[in-house]
Amino acid sequence: MSLLTTINSPADLRQLNRHQLVSLADELRQYVIDSVSKTGGHLSSNLGTVELTIALHYVFNTPEDRLVWDVGHQTYPHKILTGRRDQMHSLRQLDGISGFPRRIESEYDTFGTAHSSTSISAALGMALAARTKGESRHSVAIIGDGSMTAGMAFEALNNAGVYDDINMLVVLNDNDMSISPPVGALNRYLARLMSGKFYAAARNVGKSVLPPPMLELARRFEEHAKGMIVPATMFEEFGFNYIGPIDGHDLESLIPTLQNIKNLKGPQFLHVVTKKGQGYKLAEADPILYHGPGKFNPAEGIKPAAAPAKKTYTQVFGDWLCDMAAADDKLIGITPAMREGSGMVEFEQRFPNRYYDVGIAEQHSVTFAGGIATEGLKPVVAIYSTFLQRAYDQLIHDVALQNLDVTFALDRAGLVGADGATHAGNYDLAYLRCIPNMVVMAASDENECRQMLTTGYRYQGPAAIRYPRGAGIGATIQSELSELTIGKAELKRQGKKIAILAFGSMVHPSIKAAEALDATAVNMRFVKPIDIAMIKDMAADHDALVTVEEGCTMGGAGSAVAEALAEAGIAKPLLILGLPDKFVDHGDPALLLAQCGLNAEGIEASIRQRFL
Amino acid sequence: MSLLTTINSPADLRQLNRHQLVSLADELRQYVIDSVSKTGGHLSSNLGTVELTIALHYVFNTPEDRLVWDVGHQTYPHKILTGRRDQMHSLRQLDGISGFPRRIESEYDTFGTAHSSTSISAALGMALAARTKGESRHSVAIIGDGSMTAGMAFEALNNAGVYDDINMLVVLNDNDMSISPPVGALNRYLARLMSGKFYAAARNVGKSVLPPPMLELARRFEEHAKGMIVPATMFEEFGFNYIGPIDGHDLESLIPTLQNIKNLKGPQFLHVVTKKGQGYKLAEADPILYHGPGKFNPAEGIKPAAAPAKKTYTQVFGDWLCDMAAADDKLIGITPAMREGSGMVEFEQRFPNRYYDVGIAEQHSVTFAGGIATEGLKPVVAIYSTFLQRAYDQLIHDVALQNLDVTFALDRAGLVGADGATHAGNYDLAYLRCIPNMVVMAASDENECRQMLTTGYRYQGPAAIRYPRGAGIGATIQSELSELTIGKAELKRQGKKIAILAFGSMVHPSIKAAEALDATAVNMRFVKPIDIAMIKDMAADHDALVTVEEGCTMGGAGSAVAEALAEAGIAKPLLILGLPDKFVDHGDPALLLAQCGLNAEGIEASIRQRFL
Repeated sequence: MSLLTTINSPADLRQLNRHQLVSLADELRQYVIDSVSKTGGHLSSNLGTVELTIALHYVFNTPEDRLVWDVGHQTYPHKILTGRRDQMHSLRQLDGISGFPRRIESEYDTFGTAHSSTSISAALGMALAARTKGESRHSVAIIGDGSMTAGMAFEALNNAGVYDDINMLVVLNDNDMSISPPVGALNRYLARLMSGKFYAAARNVGKSVLPPPMLELARRFEEHAKGMIVPATMFEEFGFNYIGPIDGHDLESLIPTLQNIKNLKGPQFLHVVTKKGQGYKLAEADPILYHGPGKFNPAEGIKPAAAPAKKTYTQVFGDWLCDMAAADDKLIGITPAMREGSGMVEFEQRFPNRYYDVGIAEQHSVTFAGGIATEGLKPVVAIYSTFLQRAYDQLIHDVALQNLDVTFALDRAGLVGADGATHAGNYDLAYLRCIPNMVVMAASDENECRQMLTTGYRYQGPAAIRYPRGAGIGATIQSELSELTIGKAELKRQGKKIAILAFGSMVHPSIKAAEALDATAVNMRFVKPIDIAMIKDMAADHDALVTVEEGCTMGGAGSAVAEALAEAGIAKPLLILGLPDKFVDHGDPALLLAQCGLNAEGIEASIRQRFL
Repeated sequence: MSLLTTINSPADLRQLNRHQLVSLADELRQYVIDSVSKTGGHLSSNLGTVELTIALHYVFNTPEDRLVWDVGHQTYPHKILTGRRDQMHSLRQLDGISGFPRRIESEYDTFGTAHSSTSISAALGMALAARTKGESRHSVAIIGDGSMTAGMAFEALNNAGVYDDINMLVVLNDNDMSISPPVGALNRYLARLMSGKFYAAARNVGKSVLPPPMLELARRFEEHAKGMIVPATMFEEFGFNYIGPIDGHDLESLIPTLQNIKNLKGPQFLHVVTKKGQGYKLAEADPILYHGPGKFNPAEGIKPAAAPAKKTYTQVFGDWLCDMAAADDKLIGITPAMREGSGMVEFEQRFPNRYYDVGIAEQHSVTFAGGIATEGLKPVVAIYSTFLQRAYDQLIHDVALQNLDVTFALDRAGLVGADGATHAGNYDLAYLRCIPNMVVMAASDENECRQMLTTGYRYQGPAAIRYPRGAGIGATIQSELSELTIGKAELKRQGKKIAILAFGSMVHPSIKAAEALDATAVNMRFVKPIDIAMIKDMAADHDALVTVEEGCTMGGAGSAVAEALAEAGIAKPLLILGLPDKFVDHGDPALLLAQCGLNAEGIEASIRQRFL
């Protein structure tokens, strides 16, 4: 690590000669492997961007020039080279550095990312701002081929392509893999581009292999045709100057190409081919396994984990999906590029004709489900709470307004831990319950999650079931597909004076708190329709009510209880507990929840402080 | 009208011979003009789709085959031909037929539309559902070139392009105009396609004009190159079979082409060129003016309206934008394809270098604004409340989470009248106030709207100002750019027993109601941060509180008051008034508000019923 330790900023990097950069790449790659093996985090993607990161910081004058990393889970090399090498041990931990770029973390992190496909929009904003201010800085978006399937990347290309006086570069980091395997027509197209069966390359090849007289005629033909033919890559059709594909692990290709591009005006598009996991054999062989590992021994690789004692909610969903699909051939499973994360691997294997991975395309996934529902089939959209934000209008306009029978399985609801604020699913209860026709449920344990999925599925209209990241309490899961009564809460513990009305993941901590306080505890189950009868009963029998949810308190489930009380004409002391009105950083989920007062002790303390 | 009156369903249409169809098109066009001139509605777009509509229903076996009309404001000919001719007089009126397709209105309306770019997703869902069910029906999406700029259309193309066994057709209705003039690279590309400077056409031209020996060599060159070259339209690159462009007003082109396409398997893409306003000279000359006219005399055309007594909120925004831009050269104005609707025509003229129409691309518009804000400029995104739903994740993840200084001017908040439920801006208060860092305001009159825009603009973070469609109360607008104190409400009337806390458009009806009841009335101004001190004062001095808002009550502004009361430990009778938990249909806005109890009389009656 003789070179890497001398690099405390990209300015240091730019002092090296090209020969040294190759050694630096080796050291950087090793540093990434060592560091991720100790902290866990994203690996495959970061091994793929080592040379690209070096080349970009070498050629561009960062931070004066702006790099915007799409998604941002591939920015560990960037973090290491921009003064955060010694903080990598704190990655994704409480008060440590983030696994994504963050503006407050470094001036080199020009735009916070984590959700995909935002980088071209942000970089275009920067490029046009520079134009407005008369500054000549460059703006560079680095985006993966998976992220290119999301519509907003095309919206941004479409907008950027008309400005021929901006200093803007889009680097397509084509590694043929988002998190799940690639899907869709664009991916096929990129594969064609890469395989060299393409005009620009072909023209040169053609010239070199054609015999001279034919070459001359071909030239004349080509010239003649020039006025009529617009043979171009899709990206040129969007107004970009397309360069590539080039080898993204070859600094001798990357650096001269970037240097040339730097001198060109107007929107530039560089197609770089990289390999996820590059340089670490195990990750090259199984980039999905090494996408986001926990800690591991780099010499041995990831060991098959012992079967954990408890199933994750994701597995509970995956099992339910297979069971329900077996029971009902109308079920269609849909994921926007999250087959693994959403627990749909087995479903795809068993029901390939009813499985649709639509790519990173949340908007499309929901309206597509709506279209399927109009034909009497029963789509289930598996989507992280935070990503459903991407399809909010489609949920309202295309599904709820038409009261179409679509079931939304919302994974990663509430705080998510290491991924931090960008991935937290804190707003779903608020943004869903205001929509007419929706049924909204929050699961308190694994078995109830299964029951809620069945309930939502059988309900003839739009229904959402939220469940947290990770494992539940270890409840016994019944194999039958049984339903709950819609809008009906469950009394869990009868106590005195205080009634705690708890939602989803907060039910069990609330029961504990209720035991400590000899209070009543209710599992509310439904955020919409809310159980007004239960709320009235509780209000009648207690001095005060407390609501607890793992979600924003503004407009959330507690707010629904407040509305129900107002509606019923009941004026009763009410304490609404939930996540604070701020973005909660990354860290251990249990610690974070404790900090927010959302464990049994915290709930008890809040109630004592207010009422006792 | 001898032919048209015999057509009560597409089955009747399919009995006609091709010659009769031409006459029918003339009659249908005249019927559209007559009918829209009497009711108001969309005109230009419907005159452009007369022949296409006839041809689609003639060739396809509707309703068994599915037509999905993107946006749907071009479906008047479709409505007239599918049994709703005699209901056209009730268009967009209370209890009348909708200006958009609606599933509950007709079996021919296979999917409700109104927001753009959903049709390919929905049609793909239908096509794959048919495949699953073993049905051979066709699914057809008809989408305008403007709608093609929205990302979700590309998401759907990308997904559809890989299914080579579906019966699906996308018709691109290329009329070179969405509502505002076209923008973006895609539009330039379509123009190139249309101008014939395109490979497929060019190849044929080339062959016919090349001298024979050269032609032979060219042929050999072409053959040689074939293995390497993938010359194709963008749509072929997405896996579609591209046909076109053809003249969308020529039934003799349309019908045989559609008949041929009907026999092809896999995703088909037909590029049709039409003219907005076709056949009505005045509309052809000014399709924007005739995009959505009120009533007019078809013989005379639209007369310049006398300057209305009151400015619309849209104009108030447009004036403010120009004034603030003149005062601060950091201001950047952004619209997703709604220059006219958002009142930005003058701004574009006066500040062309600070005006960005990004196309129908709400997602991009917000992240683009975020990128601009990182460079210290001050973007203002003008967007309808209902369309901001499209950019919800971008608002959360790209703007609010980074606390970037972006101002959102939300037009058409609350009920919108003739456009109906699809365009209503009823959820913004709920979906915005749950997001950390946001400041959310609702304007009660024109002058306050201006003050709020200034307040939000000068606030160093994300702020949203909502204002209703149409004119306000006629308040005198002060020319200075003055601010309000953030989070401070305004006491409008001191009364007794009951305090009405009103938001935005409901402030003035609430004052009237308060006068009738001798109640107190407060203009709350801020939904977030809400004025807790004012709420406490009101609770202390009154027997009961009432909140009134033109928005959903679930999670809305009244809910914020309920939370504030709970937080303050105040148990007080509270009545929350607002829009009901259902989708409100189209109709006269004043009538609709009255039906919802949201006028002075309704507010008074609700209060009397509950408290007096």
